[in-house]
Amino acid sequence: MSAKLDPWGHYAIEDYRKLLEEFGISPIDKILGLLPHKHKYFERLVIFGHRDFDIWLEALKRGEKVAVLTGFMPSGRPHLGTAMVYEELKFLQSLGAHVKIAIADAEAYIVRREDRSEVIRRGVEFVAHSIAWGINPDNAEFYYQTAMDNEYYRLIQLFSRKITTAEMEAIYGDINPGKIMAALTQSADILHLQLDKYGGYKYIVVPVGADQDPHLRLTRDIADRFEQELGLKRPSSIYHKLLRGLDGNKMSKSRPEYAIHLDDDPETAEKKLANALTGGRATAEEQRRLGGEPWKCSIFELYVYHLIDDEKELKERYDECVNGKILCGQCKRIAAEKLRKLLIEHQKRFKEVITSGIAEKILKKPSF
Amino acid sequence: MSAKLDPWGHYAIEDYRKLLEEFGISPIDKILGLLPHKHKYFERLVIFGHRDFDIWLEALKRGEKVAVLTGFMPSGRPHLGTAMVYEELKFLQSLGAHVKIAIADAEAYIVRREDRSEVIRRGVEFVAHSIAWGINPDNAEFYYQTAMDNEYYRLIQLFSRKITTAEMEAIYGDINPGKIMAALTQSADILHLQLDKYGGYKYIVVPVGADQDPHLRLTRDIADRFEQELGLKRPSSIYHKLLRGLDGNKMSKSRPEYAIHLDDDPETAEKKLANALTGGRATAEEQRRLGGEPWKCSIFELYVYHLIDDEKELKERYDECVNGKILCGQCKRIAAEKLRKLLIEHQKRFKEVITSGIAEKILKKPSF
Repeated sequence: MSAKLDPWGHYAIEDYRKLLEEFGISPIDKILGLLPHKHKYFERLVIFGHRDFDIWLEALKRGEKVAVLTGFMPSGRPHLGTAMVYEELKFLQSLGAHVKIAIADAEAYIVRREDRSEVIRRGVEFVAHSIAWGINPDNAEFYYQTAMDNEYYRLIQLFSRKITTAEMEAIYGDINPGKIMAALTQSADILHLQLDKYGGYKYIVVPVGADQDPHLRLTRDIADRFEQELGLKRPSSIYHKLLRGLDGNKMSKSRPEYAIHLDDDPETAEKKLANALTGGRATAEEQRRLGGEPWKCSIFELYVYHLIDDEKELKERYDECVNGKILCGQCKRIAAEKLRKLLIEHQKRFKEVITSGIAEKILKKPSF
Repeated sequence: MSAKLDPWGHYAIEDYRKLLEEFGISPIDKILGLLPHKHKYFERLVIFGHRDFDIWLEALKRGEKVAVLTGFMPSGRPHLGTAMVYEELKFLQSLGAHVKIAIADAEAYIVRREDRSEVIRRGVEFVAHSIAWGINPDNAEFYYQTAMDNEYYRLIQLFSRKITTAEMEAIYGDINPGKIMAALTQSADILHLQLDKYGGYKYIVVPVGADQDPHLRLTRDIADRFEQELGLKRPSSIYHKLLRGLDGNKMSKSRPEYAIHLDDDPETAEKKLANALTGGRATAEEQRRLGGEPWKCSIFELYVYHLIDDEKELKERYDECVNGKILCGQCKRIAAEKLRKLLIEHQKRFKEVITSGIAEKILKKPSF
């Protein structure tokens, strides 16, 4: 085990090895050399796997048009898990990729059965947060699924011919008309940029959480089946580990007390941290003697994903912990201070974005 | 049994009574008095049933905007069964209804797995035939499903939320993604005219064959479920009996030898008639003694649906037959002469329509 991977490697690879092996996702470390510049998510294997991202990077190197597509389900409020995707988009944009972001309002309406006007209102917030996080709107497009036009929708319709009920069930278990529509809509999100009408981007990468791979597999199958007819190519994808909530489970919009939201006021966030699951021992004495277990610690995860950019500093934090030189209370105070700074700065930019009205302006609303 | 219904009534009502009773389709004869003027299909109960057509007729009487919507599956060539729908559209247009015709190219592609370019080419022919039959293109719209825009497609997408797998299975038996998409597309065909964007026609009637009622039931359910959200109302519908093929089975594009196509040359059509199933007896002697059975006769059906407009003449033909005063050979020659005239006149107009290029012009093609 290389020293570099220590802070993360302990459980990182183990937890995701099965996914890599079972579904044929390629490990990311093999292609890190193709990246024009570094990013902590790759260095730390937060992004641990990919499909055909090497093809995408080589197209970029050749000077071809490349794009990144992602979708946000605008239910709840964006949190630090959402921000991981913003961070990936920002990085890929910095490489020269065109960014396109779907607000999955059709999916929220159909599958999550949410109120449409509420979903559309929240879509603007997701976009404003992404711009506040650093995505440059001048080289990005944003859209509501239900505001798209003929060619996009036609893809959804035509795709239905070439997938089977069994393939749908493999993704969703029990299917119903809504789930099928949502899945085909997602495939059109991923593939529509390849049409001339939408820019003719033949190299698309989709950054997703590891749990989203079934959608990518479906979309790759659809691309194969429409390669001859519509000239579609398989999308590339990169897979990040899921940021866990402060209780150690998946960070979720539905359990707000264990997630740090981008609009949490710093005091609220600090209180959440105070209650967070750590890798600490039963007693202070024991922790000084045995050291902590950062690979179990939700605070350390925040360092890795968001709060510490510098590799050296991250390593120090790790070493202090495993050597028993720091206890959880003190470590939480360090994290809280970093988080406070992050939130205050982000919220200041968010306010500027909202005041400028740019998110409202670039996100065309559906007519009903 | 009234004398008026004789020519048709023998098997007409019996065959369709079950449909009326089982699914709650209302018999048409109760509301004939609401029609502003007569048409043979109503008089002869070729159109035998309806749902809410009285509501549509009353709206028409009040001077409200009314429309008629139908779809043609452009596989094969239009035949005299297709022409029944043209005839209904022409009549409803004469009452003041706006006519809108869908070319079901998405459905042909998805469910019948046809080649798209071929389907799109044939769509133009279906439209040209409809104009040649007498539909006035100035008060009519024609569209390919795959060339429609955002609001239409959004209906398809949103509809998926409020129907269940079980409802789909009740229509289709085994379902799959394509069948679901085709069914929802058909519902959007029927309901989209109600949106402001498409004219805000709240009173729509759909003329269909008796076998199409499941689609109407589904669409009525969808309208109910979106009444509050999108202001949709139930469509009205009228049901015609199916024109049988010359062998006594359903007239079908897939058995061209038993169908009269609108582009059959008159000699071919005449030969088909010569082989047609009639209600004749085993021998000439027997027929003179017992009379023929016009209710079993595919030639007599052509008289009723297309070849004889005059009620008195139709009654004469019927009486001659049942009284044994005419044999099938002679009767077929009469029918062949009428059919020749119909085809020659129609094909002359069709040629004019094609030459004018109007069908090509008004039918906007999808971009791919």
